[in-house]
Amino acid sequence: MPKQHFLDLFFNPESIAIVGASRNPTSFNFNLVGNLVKLGFSGRIYPVNPSADEILGLRAYADLRGIEGDVDLVVSSVPAAMTLDVVKQCIEKKPKMVVLVTGGFSEIGEQGGKAQDEIAQLFRQGGIRVVGPNTLSPINSSNNLVISFHPVEKLRQGGVAFIFQSGMYEFRLNWLLFDFHLGISKLIDFGNKMDVNEVDALEYLAMDPDTKVIAMHLEVMKGDGKKFMQLLTETSKRKPIVILKSGCTEAGARASASHTGSMIEGSDAVFDTVLRQAGVVRARTVEDFFYFAKSFEFLPLPRGNRIVIASYSGGEGVVATDICQREGFSMARLGQEAIDKAEVVFPTWEIPLNPFDLGVCVQFHQVGEIYDILLEAILGDRGVDCLASQLVPIPSSSVAERLYGSFLAAKEKGKPIVLWRPVMDRVVNTLYEELVERLELIHIPVYPSAARAIQALSVVYRYKIMQEGAD
Amino acid sequence: MPKQHFLDLFFNPESIAIVGASRNPTSFNFNLVGNLVKLGFSGRIYPVNPSADEILGLRAYADLRGIEGDVDLVVSSVPAAMTLDVVKQCIEKKPKMVVLVTGGFSEIGEQGGKAQDEIAQLFRQGGIRVVGPNTLSPINSSNNLVISFHPVEKLRQGGVAFIFQSGMYEFRLNWLLFDFHLGISKLIDFGNKMDVNEVDALEYLAMDPDTKVIAMHLEVMKGDGKKFMQLLTETSKRKPIVILKSGCTEAGARASASHTGSMIEGSDAVFDTVLRQAGVVRARTVEDFFYFAKSFEFLPLPRGNRIVIASYSGGEGVVATDICQREGFSMARLGQEAIDKAEVVFPTWEIPLNPFDLGVCVQFHQVGEIYDILLEAILGDRGVDCLASQLVPIPSSSVAERLYGSFLAAKEKGKPIVLWRPVMDRVVNTLYEELVERLELIHIPVYPSAARAIQALSVVYRYKIMQEGAD
Repeated sequence: MPKQHFLDLFFNPESIAIVGASRNPTSFNFNLVGNLVKLGFSGRIYPVNPSADEILGLRAYADLRGIEGDVDLVVSSVPAAMTLDVVKQCIEKKPKMVVLVTGGFSEIGEQGGKAQDEIAQLFRQGGIRVVGPNTLSPINSSNNLVISFHPVEKLRQGGVAFIFQSGMYEFRLNWLLFDFHLGISKLIDFGNKMDVNEVDALEYLAMDPDTKVIAMHLEVMKGDGKKFMQLLTETSKRKPIVILKSGCTEAGARASASHTGSMIEGSDAVFDTVLRQAGVVRARTVEDFFYFAKSFEFLPLPRGNRIVIASYSGGEGVVATDICQREGFSMARLGQEAIDKAEVVFPTWEIPLNPFDLGVCVQFHQVGEIYDILLEAILGDRGVDCLASQLVPIPSSSVAERLYGSFLAAKEKGKPIVLWRPVMDRVVNTLYEELVERLELIHIPVYPSAARAIQALSVVYRYKIMQEGAD
Repeated sequence: MPKQHFLDLFFNPESIAIVGASRNPTSFNFNLVGNLVKLGFSGRIYPVNPSADEILGLRAYADLRGIEGDVDLVVSSVPAAMTLDVVKQCIEKKPKMVVLVTGGFSEIGEQGGKAQDEIAQLFRQGGIRVVGPNTLSPINSSNNLVISFHPVEKLRQGGVAFIFQSGMYEFRLNWLLFDFHLGISKLIDFGNKMDVNEVDALEYLAMDPDTKVIAMHLEVMKGDGKKFMQLLTETSKRKPIVILKSGCTEAGARASASHTGSMIEGSDAVFDTVLRQAGVVRARTVEDFFYFAKSFEFLPLPRGNRIVIASYSGGEGVVATDICQREGFSMARLGQEAIDKAEVVFPTWEIPLNPFDLGVCVQFHQVGEIYDILLEAILGDRGVDCLASQLVPIPSSSVAERLYGSFLAAKEKGKPIVLWRPVMDRVVNTLYEELVERLELIHIPVYPSAARAIQALSVVYRYKIMQEGAD
């Protein structure tokens, strides 16, 4: 039960002390307290700063010892040279957990590694669990707990839990929440993994009822490998797990050693096999990592692999069909009832066939009518498991409104629907972007390309096959 | 010599007649004349429309026969049923070439195919070459000749010639020119390839001095296969050729048959081998097609494979390093002089190493200073062949100005530089987007991700290796 796991107080502290809290709005450390106050974190907040009496309306403390009540979580963001003193304050104050934000330890070489080992030993002796150093953590959307150097305007609750091992997400946080429209349950960043590691996080998130998908960036494994694999295998049957394992080429491993202070073990091919056996989906790039997580969060699992493609040009439909076949889909053959329905938006000389050519339809019918009729015809057909369609440009807000309604109704069929843009980058058209946002908020994803859209379906389809095999 | 090729009058007509020209600004056909007038096409324009006296200030004609002077190129966009009459007018008027925009021929089945064959025979007998039917063509940026259903605000001259076989580019044209910042030399779309085909186009563009890169979307080969392969092999030694061959899976071939009225020959694997032997770069998705073309247009060929990575987070640098190794790059080892120079923007405890961690630098130095110093240090090092760097967010317009200057100077070193965004999609920040546009206009591309940026370098590096092998 999550309530009993030691990480529960890390994600749900009743009181939190920020050591190194700043009054200067342009400093990174300002946002450590700033985000908690702005977002309305419900626990008690104790800013610690010897030269301030008050920060953002909160009483500031000279050091941890001066705080009257208990402190569940200490977040320390002071220069590396001052960290040892904070450690000593912690040993006296006895918080349940500590996050060491400060960098300059094992990632900078032998001397930093030695300092890190000393600190680790002190915490161990004091019975205090530590996340970091060299990290920004945690985020919990259910209680508005955010430790970040950047101002976060709002959190978006959702089912994806992120596990990071570097600040790779840090400057992407607002983008992730509000441009990518991904809802987060929890986020933990380990940094140098002095103590708490991927096994602890996986164990906790596997049981966390708010977490539906686990996305983990892993450079170096520090925990019990056997237990980790066991947890992956068991958890992936219930919750999809996406892993971005980096530092897996020779050059990448050397690069990793220089920034988290750890060495890689094992070869990439072995790791690949092991992950596949454990039912884990592997990402090879940063964008795959985020896109795969989004696919699992947004899409229901398809019953089968029979797909329909609808594109803005016939040529693009053929390219998409090639991609479908490569990704293991078969082109759905629509029944006569569906064909009869679809025919209404095609010219008399064209038989509606999969892939559907929307470019032909838009010459003779309104965009709103086309999607309304096609969505109903295609998704109502029992021979269709999923749909990937290009979302064409929209002429007016009333058409956007109608489209939104059609997609909302189509979603009720329970089949995965993925869309892709007319052009790769964001269209510079407010009407279109507003519709995209509304569609993504009801979990109909809009991708930059057909390849991305079909890959999203492929990722969830392969998970479903794996799950069935595991039953 | 291009001057003597029959396609020269197609791209450089002195007079052009638009049959089906429309006065209604909301109709597709309006833009056929509209774009020519707006962009200032230098030749004579004859709108043909029996119910209009004048279109956009130009005298309109009831039919082709009524035009007094010679007509080099006829563009016909009338309903399929009226096409035969236009063909007869053409036989009398004897233009050098005809573009049949109209669809509804071989792509709709047997009956359409028969009608197409009849028309083809009439043109053959009349000694007139035809592009289409079912197409929008041509574009020539050197004389502002654009045949498009969409309003085109401006052309951007550049070295990429596009060869299409469907309207896949049509709705992307403004995006391609002004969001993707790609300059076009010429564009031809074949549609159903009743007469003019890929061999003719390749032959012409191989000799075209304005064309530096040839990007070809190919569904079905209609020309002399042996000659085509010979042209590819010879041309690719001088000009990079990117081919998106679609309809190459079984399902894709069926889809292709239904929209261009043609069947596929040969298997995909065979085609793949043949293209590789001919020195052609193959794209598998629409986005690869456009990105590969952009890489060749923007980037000088690197002397070798020694790469430097500079990322906004250490973790992302490790992921990028993995990608580099997979793509055949080796991580450059900088000389002492370069390390000494770079050290200035790193904290004393960090030795500047490849991959460079810009996230560390921005905590201690200004963004403008960091790029200025690093670009000079890295690209000045003789052990470095190319650079892929994340372009971090920009605090002010003066920093943007300084960055632009630094990159402009760095470009002078003649080594390929590719950048990638802090987040995948467009950043919603005018300052950043303005800098991106300025950088792309001096041919420093800014990609959505590290993977895309490194792939761009990989495409040009592999071309360079192929070219050396062919010498």
